[in-house]
Amino acid sequence: MVSEADIISFFKRSDPNVVLGPGDDSALIKPKSGMEIAVSTDMLVAGQHFFTETDPFKLGHKALAVNLSDMAAMGANPRWATMALALPESLVKNDPKWIQEFARGFFELANSYEVALIGGDVTCGPLTISIQIIGEVIIGKALRRSGAIPGDDIWISGKLGNAALAILHEKKKIKLEPNELIECLNSLLIPVARVGLGQRLIGLANSAIDISDGLLADLGHILEHSNVAATVNISKINCSGVIEKYLSQQHVVSCMLAGGDDYELCFTVPRERRSKVDKISQEIGIPLTRIGKINKGEGLVVLDQTEKPITMEKTGYDHFPST
Amino acid sequence: MVSEADIISFFKRSDPNVVLGPGDDSALIKPKSGMEIAVSTDMLVAGQHFFTETDPFKLGHKALAVNLSDMAAMGANPRWATMALALPESLVKNDPKWIQEFARGFFELANSYEVALIGGDVTCGPLTISIQIIGEVIIGKALRRSGAIPGDDIWISGKLGNAALAILHEKKKIKLEPNELIECLNSLLIPVARVGLGQRLIGLANSAIDISDGLLADLGHILEHSNVAATVNISKINCSGVIEKYLSQQHVVSCMLAGGDDYELCFTVPRERRSKVDKISQEIGIPLTRIGKINKGEGLVVLDQTEKPITMEKTGYDHFPST
Repeated sequence: MVSEADIISFFKRSDPNVVLGPGDDSALIKPKSGMEIAVSTDMLVAGQHFFTETDPFKLGHKALAVNLSDMAAMGANPRWATMALALPESLVKNDPKWIQEFARGFFELANSYEVALIGGDVTCGPLTISIQIIGEVIIGKALRRSGAIPGDDIWISGKLGNAALAILHEKKKIKLEPNELIECLNSLLIPVARVGLGQRLIGLANSAIDISDGLLADLGHILEHSNVAATVNISKINCSGVIEKYLSQQHVVSCMLAGGDDYELCFTVPRERRSKVDKISQEIGIPLTRIGKINKGEGLVVLDQTEKPITMEKTGYDHFPST
Repeated sequence: MVSEADIISFFKRSDPNVVLGPGDDSALIKPKSGMEIAVSTDMLVAGQHFFTETDPFKLGHKALAVNLSDMAAMGANPRWATMALALPESLVKNDPKWIQEFARGFFELANSYEVALIGGDVTCGPLTISIQIIGEVIIGKALRRSGAIPGDDIWISGKLGNAALAILHEKKKIKLEPNELIECLNSLLIPVARVGLGQRLIGLANSAIDISDGLLADLGHILEHSNVAATVNISKINCSGVIEKYLSQQHVVSCMLAGGDDYELCFTVPRERRSKVDKISQEIGIPLTRIGKINKGEGLVVLDQTEKPITMEKTGYDHFPST
């Protein structure tokens, strides 16, 4: 059986960036001058946000990745994290490797971004992971949801829909080939947060958000906060060959538009900066694709391959016009 | 039934101290220059840290208070908090007032300290409250566990043991009178964090900790981090009349020494500053009591009324000598 002290030891790291690390009543950190502090929190509950039998290494990765994604969407540099963990007694007793693997997954990602775990709380309870992330961003420069301007192009990073497709497979609504399933499960379980891209977009994008609840829902938040409308061309959305193969099925279109869990960025940039975005795409080696345009007014219109507005069964986005 | 939007609305507040509040991918805050940032997190799980039927108003208060107490123990000024909440569907469905009352309890305390809730995450799951608190403290001045020096007096604020006595009553190990129960339950359910005191102790105390796990365990952390020993005189510990009445019972002594949940401060101050501590006590109207002394070496000795070392059944503190 793993003791509480063992568990804490798995999460102990020394870090020169931290004035005072875990072990006292609070940690002490010293942000750089000229920076604002970006703070965000996400909670993952077993059975709600992940299958209980999820590989703990991947879960450790994902628990941090979803938080890094929030930093990415602000253009912030993630620097510090705290973690509150509730662990079932049975897990600690019967599967002592679990917490080690979870910690390994967390730190593999944390180390690659030089994010320091500065505090935590471990308790007994239904498996719940609550992480709070703290980052830095140049004062006044953070990418907000509220800055989209009519005429802006709408861009997305990477490819959409694979994570949702994996869930569709798990729910037995479609049947993926083994190699397709691996590709889609990787998107779901070990997402890549677009941290570097977010920081490159500062001064360039007028607004940004990460696609955690689905493109339409999250783009919807930009529209709402910016008081603007948008048109999105479904044929322009970048998706994997896996998605394309199943595209004739209506709920696969939903994966792409409303699936979520992709942790790609959706951002808006004035038309005259198109070449700059293309240049970033080449430099960072991540596809950045223009999928539509910000308009005056309100509402989000999605056009199909024949430029006809389409209706979605479920968008997660209240303001979606049901025409 | 309360919707997620309703729940979020209960927690929305505007705050001039915050550059960007909840609603974007992350909040933005701007610490004052010359300050370090203190960060701490605590998780409360239903059935583990509180009785499931606890009054939600009091629970909202306590969830924040235990975090404020960590700020107090560092001498930090608590300024911002994030909250991740898992709520059972049945609670949201059958008891829509619950979350409103919880929010009311949280904000009554938050407002009195001008702490702004800057971010959150609400999800479905077993009732779990994870709060992270962020405060400011003058660079290099935070009260740490590691600063105790041989010769320091050991002080505690307020009275110890009432919270643990309430638990003893709930577990039917003692039977309190109704008025005694109310006094003890108040200590347990609506603890007062010693935020003002903590800040007054900066530059005065060599070390500090909050008593969340029991006096001996928490003083033990100071000894461990400071590489020192200590003697505590049980007769000098300040406790309520309720405790005194039941003191002949061994487990009541445990309440005082190892009970925890008091959220008072334990701190060490050089002998020559005794009068300054007494002055603070008068000014803030909270009893501050000298209960012992920091010594060279290691180990913690507790002396009973006749100055004989006593043995505790359970201290929570590994280094307690079993003589």
